Amino acid sequence: MNYEKIPESTRFLIIGLGLMGGSYARALKKQGYTVEAIDKNIDAIEYALDKDIIDVGSTVTTEEAVKRADIIVFALYPHVFLEWLEKYRDFIRKDTLITDVTGVKTVIVHDVQEKLGNKAEFIAAHPMAGREVGGVHNSNEAIFKGANYIVVPTEKNTEHAIEVCCELGEILDFRKISVLSPEEHDTMIAFLSQLTHAIAVALMCTNGDPKLCDYTGDSFRDLTRIANINDVMWSELFLLNKDALLEQTDAFIEQITKMRDMIASGDREGIRDMMKTSTERRKRFNKPTS
Amino acid sequence: MNYEKIPESTRFLIIGLGLMGGSYARALKKQGYTVEAIDKNIDAIEYALDKDIIDVGSTVTTEEAVKRADIIVFALYPHVFLEWLEKYRDFIRKDTLITDVTGVKTVIVHDVQEKLGNKAEFIAAHPMAGREVGGVHNSNEAIFKGANYIVVPTEKNTEHAIEVCCELGEILDFRKISVLSPEEHDTMIAFLSQLTHAIAVALMCTNGDPKLCDYTGDSFRDLTRIANINDVMWSELFLLNKDALLEQTDAFIEQITKMRDMIASGDREGIRDMMKTSTERRKRFNKPTS
Repeated sequence: MNYEKIPESTRFLIIGLGLMGGSYARALKKQGYTVEAIDKNIDAIEYALDKDIIDVGSTVTTEEAVKRADIIVFALYPHVFLEWLEKYRDFIRKDTLITDVTGVKTVIVHDVQEKLGNKAEFIAAHPMAGREVGGVHNSNEAIFKGANYIVVPTEKNTEHAIEVCCELGEILDFRKISVLSPEEHDTMIAFLSQLTHAIAVALMCTNGDPKLCDYTGDSFRDLTRIANINDVMWSELFLLNKDALLEQTDAFIEQITKMRDMIASGDREGIRDMMKTSTERRKRFNKPTS
Repeated sequence: MNYEKIPESTRFLIIGLGLMGGSYARALKKQGYTVEAIDKNIDAIEYALDKDIIDVGSTVTTEEAVKRADIIVFALYPHVFLEWLEKYRDFIRKDTLITDVTGVKTVIVHDVQEKLGNKAEFIAAHPMAGREVGGVHNSNEAIFKGANYIVVPTEKNTEHAIEVCCELGEILDFRKISVLSPEEHDTMIAFLSQLTHAIAVALMCTNGDPKLCDYTGDSFRDLTRIANINDVMWSELFLLNKDALLEQTDAFIEQITKMRDMIASGDREGIRDMMKTSTERRKRFNKPTS
């Protein structure tokens, strides 16, 4: 290990030890860092201590735990993040860097930075990785391999914090690390992530015939993999990114309605044109094999 | 090998040696059957002979080739199937069984049976398997393993033909073999296959930002895997199953619009209800691990 901005002596505190927090902990421990975690679920903490996923763990937030952290990673629901800061922000050391894994940014990042004032710096990040199953027992640092990591600074962030956050993405072994503004991030995520989940859910709601599973092929299975969804988390993410998501959903409804109308009128060439556009664009998204 | 209705001496003729025809040929040869193929593409025939995928091959349809076949598998576009029958139906032996792999049934099966009259029996089938790449060089009998096979008889079919066709599904090593009427098949396939392809295509047409691929996660990749699509074949399949596809597409547009309106009005409980329905239904579609 030889990282310039995050030396081996760096101590991490992960708040929220679920799938994502657990995967961060595993990756960081493997790189030799000291990792502490807080989660109100005693089973998660005991499991993580037992499996050596973390060095220190607790179900309560103490001033000592927060004070000894050099980098805090917040890995819970957006509204819990804001509640936690309200209660415990005075515990944070001024030179501690705070980052997160939250899937929406515009409505969160400015609030968080405002609540922190000049107490400590918060630099937002979004690891574009996950699984359909949750919990620290399903965590795995391999989910970051080949995936994308997005650092989402505001005008209040320092160059130093942006560089540290990018290096964290490298340490976690993400394939590509990008920097986007909160607005760019939220437009992108509305299309690539939230709209795709809305589509998969709507498709499953379209037809309830229980015999369908006897006839399915892999196309339907792959398209609806994400229809198995955490309704508490995703309804929150949808509503926190309402404007961008509505814009992308309306654009999609326009396209699927265009396709529908071309099928109705028998416009073979129009259908083929859409399919050619689709095929051409989809090629860019093939997973890099290297 | 010990199949009752399709003994080892059975001779197969595959017309159309692409991905599906090639995969049939490989599976049947492995079980010890003699397999002949006709494809106008000389490269496909030479490749298949060279790799021992078929025993005999030709780029032209001859009376001898058709006459010596006990079972003919037609694996080309629907309209080519009808053109072929028009030209060559007199070559077919009366006791030869004809089957196919076509993805739509109602508009095809009655025409084919009418064209054949009492010359020979046609029993329709739909192997629910495939790949995003075409051609005999990409064929692989492993695509059938774990997949579903549907036999689609009409009132004109004999019990014997239905049983032979079901046994063919077993020989090819499909996981589940079902029998559906042409109308049931087309409604099911409109939802499970054609609508999913229409959705993936429409989603790719929604946003052309070339930088998106830098930020994508696996959800978007999996949902749009089938957006890389053979526009000639799929536009034909869409239009041949127009009524059923329109019905399913309208039902989907209703659901995605319902989701859109709930996002707009901030109806968190409504969104959660759709997500719970979706999660519950999606569980049935998990791939059997055995």
